[in-house]
Amino acid sequence: MPWPAGVTVQSGSLPVNLTFSVSLSGAGATDPRVKVAVNRMFVRLARQTGIPVRSHFVEQGTGGATLNIIVEERDHPPPQRLGDDERYALEIATTGARLSAGRPLGALRGIETFLELVGQNTGPGVTPGFSVPCLAIRDQPRFPWRGLSLDVSRHFIPVGDVERTLDGMSAVKLNVFHWHLSDDQGFRVESRRYPRLQQYGSHGLYYTQAQIREVIAYAGDRGIRVIPEFDMPGHATSWLTGYPELGSRSGAFEITAGYGIFNDLIDPTKEYTYRFLDGFIGEMAALFPDAFFHIGGDEVDPKQWNDNPHIQEFMRSHDLADPKALHAYFNQRVQRIVAHHGKHMIGWDEVLQPDLPKSVVIQSWRGQHSLWQAARQGYQGILSAGYYLNLMYPAAYHYGIDPMKVPPSAPGSHAGPESAEPAPGTPADLTPEQQKMVLGGEAAMWEELATPENLDAKLWPRLAAVAERFWSPEATTDMASMYNRLESTNRWLEWLGLTQHSGLVLMRQRLAGGKLSQPLEVFASILEPVKEYSRHAENYTSSTPLNRLVDSIPPESDAAREFREEVDAYLSIPTGQGNSEELKGLLADWANNTQEVRPVLRSNSLLTENLPVADAVAALCDMGEQALGYLGSGNAPGPDWKQQTLAKVDGYVDKRIGDVLIQIAPGVRKLVEAVPSAHP
Amino acid sequence: MPWPAGVTVQSGSLPVNLTFSVSLSGAGATDPRVKVAVNRMFVRLARQTGIPVRSHFVEQGTGGATLNIIVEERDHPPPQRLGDDERYALEIATTGARLSAGRPLGALRGIETFLELVGQNTGPGVTPGFSVPCLAIRDQPRFPWRGLSLDVSRHFIPVGDVERTLDGMSAVKLNVFHWHLSDDQGFRVESRRYPRLQQYGSHGLYYTQAQIREVIAYAGDRGIRVIPEFDMPGHATSWLTGYPELGSRSGAFEITAGYGIFNDLIDPTKEYTYRFLDGFIGEMAALFPDAFFHIGGDEVDPKQWNDNPHIQEFMRSHDLADPKALHAYFNQRVQRIVAHHGKHMIGWDEVLQPDLPKSVVIQSWRGQHSLWQAARQGYQGILSAGYYLNLMYPAAYHYGIDPMKVPPSAPGSHAGPESAEPAPGTPADLTPEQQKMVLGGEAAMWEELATPENLDAKLWPRLAAVAERFWSPEATTDMASMYNRLESTNRWLEWLGLTQHSGLVLMRQRLAGGKLSQPLEVFASILEPVKEYSRHAENYTSSTPLNRLVDSIPPESDAAREFREEVDAYLSIPTGQGNSEELKGLLADWANNTQEVRPVLRSNSLLTENLPVADAVAALCDMGEQALGYLGSGNAPGPDWKQQTLAKVDGYVDKRIGDVLIQIAPGVRKLVEAVPSAHP
Repeated sequence: MPWPAGVTVQSGSLPVNLTFSVSLSGAGATDPRVKVAVNRMFVRLARQTGIPVRSHFVEQGTGGATLNIIVEERDHPPPQRLGDDERYALEIATTGARLSAGRPLGALRGIETFLELVGQNTGPGVTPGFSVPCLAIRDQPRFPWRGLSLDVSRHFIPVGDVERTLDGMSAVKLNVFHWHLSDDQGFRVESRRYPRLQQYGSHGLYYTQAQIREVIAYAGDRGIRVIPEFDMPGHATSWLTGYPELGSRSGAFEITAGYGIFNDLIDPTKEYTYRFLDGFIGEMAALFPDAFFHIGGDEVDPKQWNDNPHIQEFMRSHDLADPKALHAYFNQRVQRIVAHHGKHMIGWDEVLQPDLPKSVVIQSWRGQHSLWQAARQGYQGILSAGYYLNLMYPAAYHYGIDPMKVPPSAPGSHAGPESAEPAPGTPADLTPEQQKMVLGGEAAMWEELATPENLDAKLWPRLAAVAERFWSPEATTDMASMYNRLESTNRWLEWLGLTQHSGLVLMRQRLAGGKLSQPLEVFASILEPVKEYSRHAENYTSSTPLNRLVDSIPPESDAAREFREEVDAYLSIPTGQGNSEELKGLLADWANNTQEVRPVLRSNSLLTENLPVADAVAALCDMGEQALGYLGSGNAPGPDWKQQTLAKVDGYVDKRIGDVLIQIAPGVRKLVEAVPSAHP
Repeated sequence: MPWPAGVTVQSGSLPVNLTFSVSLSGAGATDPRVKVAVNRMFVRLARQTGIPVRSHFVEQGTGGATLNIIVEERDHPPPQRLGDDERYALEIATTGARLSAGRPLGALRGIETFLELVGQNTGPGVTPGFSVPCLAIRDQPRFPWRGLSLDVSRHFIPVGDVERTLDGMSAVKLNVFHWHLSDDQGFRVESRRYPRLQQYGSHGLYYTQAQIREVIAYAGDRGIRVIPEFDMPGHATSWLTGYPELGSRSGAFEITAGYGIFNDLIDPTKEYTYRFLDGFIGEMAALFPDAFFHIGGDEVDPKQWNDNPHIQEFMRSHDLADPKALHAYFNQRVQRIVAHHGKHMIGWDEVLQPDLPKSVVIQSWRGQHSLWQAARQGYQGILSAGYYLNLMYPAAYHYGIDPMKVPPSAPGSHAGPESAEPAPGTPADLTPEQQKMVLGGEAAMWEELATPENLDAKLWPRLAAVAERFWSPEATTDMASMYNRLESTNRWLEWLGLTQHSGLVLMRQRLAGGKLSQPLEVFASILEPVKEYSRHAENYTSSTPLNRLVDSIPPESDAAREFREEVDAYLSIPTGQGNSEELKGLLADWANNTQEVRPVLRSNSLLTENLPVADAVAALCDMGEQALGYLGSGNAPGPDWKQQTLAKVDGYVDKRIGDVLIQIAPGVRKLVEAVPSAHP
């Protein structure tokens, strides 16, 4: 995962053992990224197999390496650029493997494919050990821009956690790390020219310039570009804390722990603002080598502009009819500064305003509509709408979003079908030239409710499904195959040190009083956090402890999903003929477990809030078992049973109890729904 | 854990929440180790609680900090010395806590105690959150030398893994990291004066001097001394690979992947040897600041000395009667060099020979006997015998070893009681002055079968039990209490990033084909690796993959131990009156699980070797269930049942199947043994 553009599986396999070796050839193999990637590969093979594989390079020409890597041409000097060639071909035979790429990045991508193919020999009588299957792959990305946007303002994410995320990103062939470095809650970069930015705006939680360079080098080694975002003119409180003269109102500012849209704005009418930004952007343009520079530009609440007579006067004297026009004026001035420092500007889709230079890239967070509109107007763009991993949607939802197609509605969305809209899945109404303006997409993790300890679980494995959407051919859409492969990719990623599994186990262990509680594990396995922004309503701040059960469960419950699939399979068989033993067993186990988990919930102060959840699970299991009883025996229930039971089940389907959802409820509902009505 | 020297528990607790703060006062609080320890404490509190605790120092005098740390006096300049004051007092009241220490190290030890006390509020109706219980502790170590010796020659352990080990050590108040840096299999330090040592002797796996300094600083911050060991004149192949002129035979040398005692020795008769060692020890004495320098000195096989006519001639001309005398001569010369460079020499107990200067410290690996003999002769000493964690003994065994008492025999040892020996537990026959010569002890991890991925599981949690033996009062010996506390300490240590649990889960996941297999987890939970050196017999080398089931299980099975305890409890009640439901349930679960695990064992090539283990588990469960049947019903079995069944059980008690032991076997044997014999 991501699934390659073309693959032919053959019989046989190539052993991966102590003698594993690599040869490097071709002019492009001298690229330092290739050599360090191969050295990482040796280490990772040792981790993945438990075999003490050593760095063993075979001289070109002497032949006989296990993996022969050929990189035809050198690349341009660093930094990596948008559109750099990432194609590769991988041929694995029983006697050796050949990875060929035109340029260094292709070799990096192919190495990840090779690593993910390593598996233990299976089946009776095979040689103990590990191998890769014989096959031929020709692979290339669908989109050249495949990113993750990480918010480090609302919760600071230390360097080690960022680097771990980069490890995961490169494993699934993502190539852009979009670093959301400033927001109302904190300014996370050391500026030497304007040191009060971090001194007053970060509570001491910021990256030094040395750390920034370290992360950029770390990403570059893994074929990942780093694009900094400094949000302006809104989401700007943290700028103003140290430099209140930038503000659109007078007085002092303080970074906020709260969430939402604040109305502190940079003043776009002062020349001081542009002198400041010229100095700041100049400093940051030198620190961040990528050709792109993100200026945010989203969610500008114009209140302070409207309230400020100086700004109103400026707008009149400059023929700026409304705040949108003022925002456009600001963007144009900032764009000239960004361009002056040798960068392309990128901004959230609000920056798409009249007279915006065509060199600006649009990042759509509000939907395909704005992306396509930009493309029709001649702007390049990337899609983030539908890829907000912080909303806790299942992998299937994000996987179903395509930058070039009308999106499905979000799960649990009750908006009726709008007949004027084309149906989900309808291809974008764009000419081939306009289609080329769509560069790809970025998943986004906004960190209101994510911290270093559960970040991995909020990103992985769903991010791998999004990565496949950006890399693999448009036609790669089979959900069952995706979930199947996602599971093994998820486990594979753990060898990189990702903590999506182990981190949550530790959190639940803490909840259970410091000891792993099997009943709590089972109980938690069918729950999910509430979706969308519905937790925010409850006054969370960046100081709120995120140490409750809802924080320790993955966004998507595999056990509940598998139960729902099992229900579908059972109901697809004519009534009375299916085998319901497995479903009955699951429901009985979950019901029994509610008895065992209650003392755990009662005795630990952070868990007591979940006692009603246990009651609800027991009730749902009971209803499910009743329904299976009627379905299996063919006996009809009493006249009111179905109506009453459906009403009860509907109290749990997509209904929060505290901050969690019981995700077996939709499956139970289908079972109840399938019971034949009694004929009164 | 370790249990404090004195503790009084009171009622009530002190909340640990977002407002947690620390004040520092006293001249000793300016020691940099204290400040960084408190900063680490803030980070660890956030990890342990999930509360975003921030570094919050309260000015002394303003009052009201949650934890007030008073360190009376400054310490001498670094490095830390043997015997530095580690005493502290900790008083926790509902309104605040006070940690007072005479010197900085005491504050570090007290901070660990405070951190381990943090727990979630429990019980119905309590405030959600975390707290520490009110109590008063006065604590001090029993021994001033409390160490771990880590072999990094047989398997190289990278810096990150060493630092993780130091984190764990400081948590359980160990204060000496003994770094076994050279052996036949590799020389692991960069020497600038003699670079062929690492160039020819390490396969590229060695620490640079910068890394050594980093580790020493890391340890120093945590109150841990670092003592290097360079083993000589035996275990010396890795010296000779680059400098064959040091050898006792002519010809070339190569570092070995094999294990055992090799006979390559440094030549003690050449003046070149002493010029070389003077240069080398001088360089290393400057790199390692500790006052002690370990020269190994163990396991000298004199063959090459006996075979070399030059050496024989030297011995004759110097009146050296035998190889022991020559070894003593070598030690005296080396000791003068070590002393010349300002260090105290320490060596394994073979160095205890006539005329050895009294400043040399003796490390006893062969038993209390040599430790006490040294003490009687006026040498200081430390005990390592009985603390070899690589032997895979249970925590109880190591916990039962005391430097000042006659040791019990090792588990499974079938040596009959020697009537001439004092009984285990008899205090050492030493005068009070001689007793003071015993400085403490060191656990040891020899790395034939340990690698970075399972190192933590081979160290922890057993090392915490050894640490308690070295720190806590002699009378702290209750096994049930130890195991009880060891479990929570084990979980607590995971917050430091130790991987004793998560690392083995990943390994078993790999074995099961990349996916966690619950049947394999259950199956593995009652197994242990074979003990002592019995795996070595099978030609393991440092190139052998350590990726089999035996490598992925902890040294001690908690499930099996608890089963055996349950059996003892059941059998302590008069026959027929005990409740055997729990025991029956366990046996039935394990028996059923053998059905489920067989397909997993069959289908993964590295697991098939364990199919006979599954058969044996099933047989043992069956015998145990039969025995419980007879015991519960009071019915006597047929005349031959008991004899035949005991014979069968004895085929599994302490009997290896492949490389594993089934550790429920001793419990099943007790059940069978308890069945009344039939009266024929």
